[in-house]
Amino acid sequence: MRVGILGSGLIGGKLGTIFARAGHEVVFSYARSEQKLKVLARDAKGQARAGTPREIAQEADAVLLAVHWSRIEDVLNQTGDLSGKVIVTCSLPMNDDNTELVVAHTSSGAEELAKMIPKARVVATFNTVPSEVLFGVYEAKRKASRPSQVYCGDDQRAKELAAGLIRDVGFNPVDAGPLRIARYTEPFALPVAQLAYEGKGGPELAYRFEWLRK
Amino acid sequence: MRVGILGSGLIGGKLGTIFARAGHEVVFSYARSEQKLKVLARDAKGQARAGTPREIAQEADAVLLAVHWSRIEDVLNQTGDLSGKVIVTCSLPMNDDNTELVVAHTSSGAEELAKMIPKARVVATFNTVPSEVLFGVYEAKRKASRPSQVYCGDDQRAKELAAGLIRDVGFNPVDAGPLRIARYTEPFALPVAQLAYEGKGGPELAYRFEWLRK
Repeated sequence: MRVGILGSGLIGGKLGTIFARAGHEVVFSYARSEQKLKVLARDAKGQARAGTPREIAQEADAVLLAVHWSRIEDVLNQTGDLSGKVIVTCSLPMNDDNTELVVAHTSSGAEELAKMIPKARVVATFNTVPSEVLFGVYEAKRKASRPSQVYCGDDQRAKELAAGLIRDVGFNPVDAGPLRIARYTEPFALPVAQLAYEGKGGPELAYRFEWLRK
Repeated sequence: MRVGILGSGLIGGKLGTIFARAGHEVVFSYARSEQKLKVLARDAKGQARAGTPREIAQEADAVLLAVHWSRIEDVLNQTGDLSGKVIVTCSLPMNDDNTELVVAHTSSGAEELAKMIPKARVVATFNTVPSEVLFGVYEAKRKASRPSQVYCGDDQRAKELAAGLIRDVGFNPVDAGPLRIARYTEPFALPVAQLAYEGKGGPELAYRFEWLRK
């Protein structure tokens, strides 16, 4: 599968690298410098290259949106038409200080994004764990018990594609329902970040749902 | 410890029963009928009895608040003064249909509660898992790997007491920080409920944070 990365920062850079190692063709775009994209592509050691948001909009089977919330409008202007595209968003609607959500309760970043690109097929995921845990999850992915990763969306085929990517990273995909559920899952990223960055256990933090059976 | 239960319904009834079995003195109050309180107290098979909110306010070392959000005002009117009391709240600010949160984003049920009883010491917990999982967690509590239970609050000693109760039930208490973090943890109860009641795995659902170490 050809996966385009819009926003090759902390999360986008790592997820793109993992997607490439898992066998996908990856195009990194939208970082501080062209040089950073090239280094990412080289270090990914798979079929990865640097590209532009516009190329991604034209060629990718799935697009990972991993920009800071303040950059959404700019990156969408650069992509052009995203009609029909599967957009996997991990972009949380944080303020510029990264201290508070600017959208919550009655909507979510994912829902607002879907309104901006109504013909795209948006799935929200990878937004409740710190970027620091991603390589560790990928390296441990052959283990029997994988951490969970919730995802939600309104397009069933887009969700299946996203679930495949979640599995490729090493998580167990947990379908949390329609896109509007993002308004309840996105806030959870803040206590997770608190535990990861302020807690004693460090940032390599994931979570797992467990069903008890008697 | 003497634990008073305000709201002996699905969650309050089960947690009170578990607290009694774990060796605490439990007073059940505020259910649909006096008869229900007596049955709960009898079936708890520990030091448990039926009582009134007012008795609990006077005698309890810790108070579990487990009423529906629409009942908060009524139950607080019945308790009288709660100054200095440790209030462990699992009451989510749900609407009457239990479909949406009525408080979120800029506040939480726990923060609103703390404003109503400013001299009490409020800790929010037990609000992100279905009641159906509680007995299972208690029965499995000798196992090495316990599910997590986040808690938050502004009073350190109250939090320590709450953490003890969380451990008594069989969870691993995870300190998520000050009470305002409840605005980010309470919403998570909705996708958890969705998974528990609409998903394939059934309602005996808990979650566990996992720190990966290389």
